[in-house]
Order: sequence, then structure tokens, then C-alpha cells
Amino acid sequence: MFIKDIKVLDCTIRDGGLMNKWQFSKELVKAVYDADVAAGIDVMEIGYISSEDQFPRGEYGPWKFCAEDDLREIVGDNNTDMKLSVMADIGRIKYDDIRPKSESVVDLFRVACYDYQIDKAIELAHHVMDKGYDATINLMAVSKVNDRALDQVLADVAASRVGTFYLVDSFGSLYSEDMHSLVEKYQKALPGKTIGFHGHNNTQLAFANTIECLIKGVRMVDATMLGLGRGAGNCPLELLLSFLKNPKYHSLPVIKCIQDYIKPLQKDLSWGYFIPYMITGAQNDHPRSAMAWMAGENRDDYVAYYESVVTNKEV
Amino acid sequence: MFIKDIKVLDCTIRDGGLMNKWQFSKELVKAVYDADVAAGIDVMEIGYISSEDQFPRGEYGPWKFCAEDDLREIVGDNNTDMKLSVMADIGRIKYDDIRPKSESVVDLFRVACYDYQIDKAIELAHHVMDKGYDATINLMAVSKVNDRALDQVLADVAASRVGTFYLVDSFGSLYSEDMHSLVEKYQKALPGKTIGFHGHNNTQLAFANTIECLIKGVRMVDATMLGLGRGAGNCPLELLLSFLKNPKYHSLPVIKCIQDYIKPLQKDLSWGYFIPYMITGAQNDHPRSAMAWMAGENRDDYVAYYESVVTNKEV
Repeated sequence: MFIKDIKVLDCTIRDGGLMNKWQFSKELVKAVYDADVAAGIDVMEIGYISSEDQFPRGEYGPWKFCAEDDLREIVGDNNTDMKLSVMADIGRIKYDDIRPKSESVVDLFRVACYDYQIDKAIELAHHVMDKGYDATINLMAVSKVNDRALDQVLADVAASRVGTFYLVDSFGSLYSEDMHSLVEKYQKALPGKTIGFHGHNNTQLAFANTIECLIKGVRMVDATMLGLGRGAGNCPLELLLSFLKNPKYHSLPVIKCIQDYIKPLQKDLSWGYFIPYMITGAQNDHPRSAMAWMAGENRDDYVAYYESVVTNKEV
Repeated sequence: MFIKDIKVLDCTIRDGGLMNKWQFSKELVKAVYDADVAAGIDVMEIGYISSEDQFPRGEYGPWKFCAEDDLREIVGDNNTDMKLSVMADIGRIKYDDIRPKSESVVDLFRVACYDYQIDKAIELAHHVMDKGYDATINLMAVSKVNDRALDQVLADVAASRVGTFYLVDSFGSLYSEDMHSLVEKYQKALPGKTIGFHGHNNTQLAFANTIECLIKGVRMVDATMLGLGRGAGNCPLELLLSFLKNPKYHSLPVIKCIQDYIKPLQKDLSWGYFIPYMITGAQNDHPRSAMAWMAGENRDDYVAYYESVVTNKEV
């Protein structure tokens, strides 16, 4: 599949950091950055922008905060064709902490929000745009948003200055027909704007759903190396690059980085396909109960987990 | 998704046996059988029918041969609603070894063949049908068959008495648009016949491709518990059952069997998503070079593998 105007965003560090509180070594973050540049990745998302009032340094690594000095230690002035993005959660960032774009190596802010936070998200997005950055809004958990509420969100975004709006399969519960239906709805409501997609791999459909989005006209898609991410993880970047036929992409640098840095993380971090994550995906539920189960002593007792979430739900 | 006339075939033992030469304990095979019955599975494929002249007993476990006595030790007279199937490879079975259906607990023979073997496959299928069994033909490696050869195969099958014909993604290299195109072609060429699908998970698309086939009208689909199978494995049965909404299917017995018997196999058998399998899938190649690589000392050197297969191919 060749798509001229596609943008691939690698959020290995930002999303993978949910697994280890962003305690990646600088060597690893630099290796991911170098691999992304060599692979022709369009945007690397290096972490969250968060207020240091809310999260203690030490417990959280530097990619929870993305202080300018920490960023520059990795990317210098980022004299490459690749853009850098950070993610901001509503309520966890102070406007005054955001410096003007002229003083930052960051290019793009992605604002993640739930449907009831859309007004705050648009305000934050406009704020960073006024400071010179690009912005996207990523609406999480759309599989639980009712149709009227979603129409309201889309109308608000349509009336905003934000150029890119993300479809996010937070629970890894959607499949192709959902993708087609949601992308068509987003496109109809947001003429002239770019639609993005961020999937999760609970039911092994993150890559497949990404393909379906691309077929329907989504033009900005997220992935992580070896699917690194919380719980079941994300769309694997190496699969996405191997699938895309654009000459600008090269999968070998990513494969090398996986071999040298990401695969070895599996000694300490457990992400990917496990039955509890599959169960929450199939049930269209947040994976938090599955993550808690997988962190406990009975992690291999799938039957007890199933009974605790499915049977309880049906009562 | 509710499909009234769907048939799910569990080939955990038959396909998983490619990993360990069918050296499963009788306890494990019985557990899979009991779980399949409890889960409402339509067909369980318990192994290959092979000539004992060609494969030494001892090196190969009983499910490489499916001798009647071995089968009955597990299933008795199979007084259940579930059918039993065996797979036959062209040239590895003697017609005289096949007893009449009245003397066997087997219901269905599935004949696997390459395109150039279709005449032999039809002859074998007709032979077992004349002995009282049902039969399918499973055309392997369709991603490498050219259009004229495929038309010939389909014309031969259309003129045969065989009622079910399988689309097989042998290399795990196909995605939704391939599924749609091939299923439409098969349906057009084979009016009145059932189309089946057997996927492989090299690029994490086995489940997604199964869904696409179901959407297009495929009515017999294969899966294995936890995706057990050679290399990257197959469509996970637990995902498929969780997705299907038919009241006749129950995923908990499968999840319990995975917990007790299949997951523990991972201590000795390595199947699932690994970079070398992904590379052969993305290249539309047989995974044999990846399997050989994964069995060697340099299994974690993905870069060397990539260079050996991709660079060599491009020279």
C-alpha cells in the first residue's frame, strides 16, 4: 500500500513509559530517536508534558515531564526532517510551563481527553497553537461514547482551529466494521481536517485496524517498536513499516533498535498478548482490572479472572 | 457478530503438532477434546492421517497417524455433536489404509494440496467421500499462485463433488483487501459450495483476516488455542469465540484449557510473534528460513536474518 501523504508517529517512549514510569535510559531514548530518523518516521513522540508539582521526579523518569534540557540532551536541535511531539493530559499541565515554540525543540502537542473534557482540550490546543506549536486532539475511549455525545465532540472540534483529530481505540475492542463506521463519521463531521488513529492490541487487531483506517483515508497513524505499551501494547511499528510501500520508510533501523534495546526490556516488562487483556478487549472494558490482575500473584489463573470480571458483570 | 451457519474448527492438536512432532500427552489431547465439546466447537481436527511407512512411530507421536485405536482412547465413540476431522497430505497416505466410515470415529478428511496437486487432491477427496466421509480441499500458499493457475484449480474444484474449499494464507502475508478479493473470486467460481479459511499469524493478521472472511461469507474457519501452531501460529480460538456472538459458543472452557495445558507448553515450545516470522510474512515467503533461524544459536540476531533473506532476495 502506497500512500503519499501518510504520517507515521512512533510513540514507543511516550506510550511504553506507561510500563516503567518513563525510567528509560538516555542511551535507549537516543537509540529510538536515531532509529526513527533513519527509518524515515515522520513524528517521534518522546513523552508527556506534565507538571512537576503533580508527579515526583525520581519516581518518574524525565520522559514524564519532557523538560527542554532533557529533550535537547537526546535530540540536540533536532536538525532532521522528523518532528517531535509530546502528549498532554487535561489537568496535568500548567499553561505557564509551556514555553514559546521559538524556545523549544518540540513541534507538536497532542492533547488526550475524554468526551466530557473536549472544551478544555480545545482550549489547551488553541493555547499551544498560539504559542507556535502544532496540535492534535486525541479523543480516548470512543467505544464507550454515545452517539449524541460524539456528535457534540465532533461539532466542537469542527468549529475549532485544531487541524488533526484522533480516533483512539483505548480498550482494543474495535474491529474493521467499527473503524469504517467511525472514520466515515469523523470525516463527514470534520471536512478539511486530518484524521489520526491510535490502536491497542488487546484482541490482536491494532495493526489490522490501522490498515483499515489507512484504506478509509486516515493519514496519521501511531505505532511503537515491538508494540511496546501498557498491557497488550500497540500497533507494532515494524509491521506498519513493512506493510507501507513508501520509499521513504525503512524497517531495518527499527528492527535493529528492537534487537538491541526493546526486546531486552521483556526481561523486566511484560506487555503483549495475554488472556486477561484479551478478555477486557472482548468486553469493551478498560484494561485496568487486567493490569492489576497481571501484577498480582494469581496472574496465570485466567479462569478466576474471567469469572471475576465477566460473571460479575453479568450479575 | 452473529452468524447462524458458521462452523468453527479447532486444529490445536493437528497444527500445534507441527511444533513437537505430535508428541502431546493423551491427557492433553483429551483436555482439548473435552474443552472443545464444552465450548460448542463444531469440528475438532485431531491430527494427520499418514502412512506409518513414511514416518517412524516413536519419533512421531500418535496424532501424526490417527490410528483408530488411538483416536478411540481419547474420544470413545464421540457421542457428541462435535465432528472429528483429520488432515491428509497428498502422497503421504495410502488409500488402502483408510477404513470405511462405518468403522471409524472420524467424520471429515481435509486434503491439503498445492495448486499443481489439485487433481490428486480431488481424487483423494472423492475416494474418502466414497468411503462415507465428508471432505474438504485446502489449497495452500495461494499468495504465490498466479491467476491463470488459480482459475484452473477453481474450475477443477467446481466440477468435483467436494463441497468445501479452503482459502489458506500459508505465509501469513495477506490482509483484508486480499481476503475480500480472494473470497469473492472463490465464491464466484464455486457457487453452492462452502468456503473455508485457515490463517497464519506472521503479521498479526490471522484473527483480523478471519473476521474479514466471515464478513464476506466464509462459513468454516480454523483456529487453535492460544494460536498454537508452527512459527507465528494461527488464529487464536479464544479470540474468535469471544468475537462470535452465537449462543452455542462458550469461551471459558477454552480459556481453562489454555491455562491448564496450552500456556504451560510455552516452557518448551516457542510460537507466536517473532521478528523473523514477521519478516517472511511481510515478504510473502514460506517461513522455513525463519523457523531454521529461530532454531539456531543466533535466533535473536534479527538484523543478520533480515540481511540474509531480504538483501539476498533483492540481489
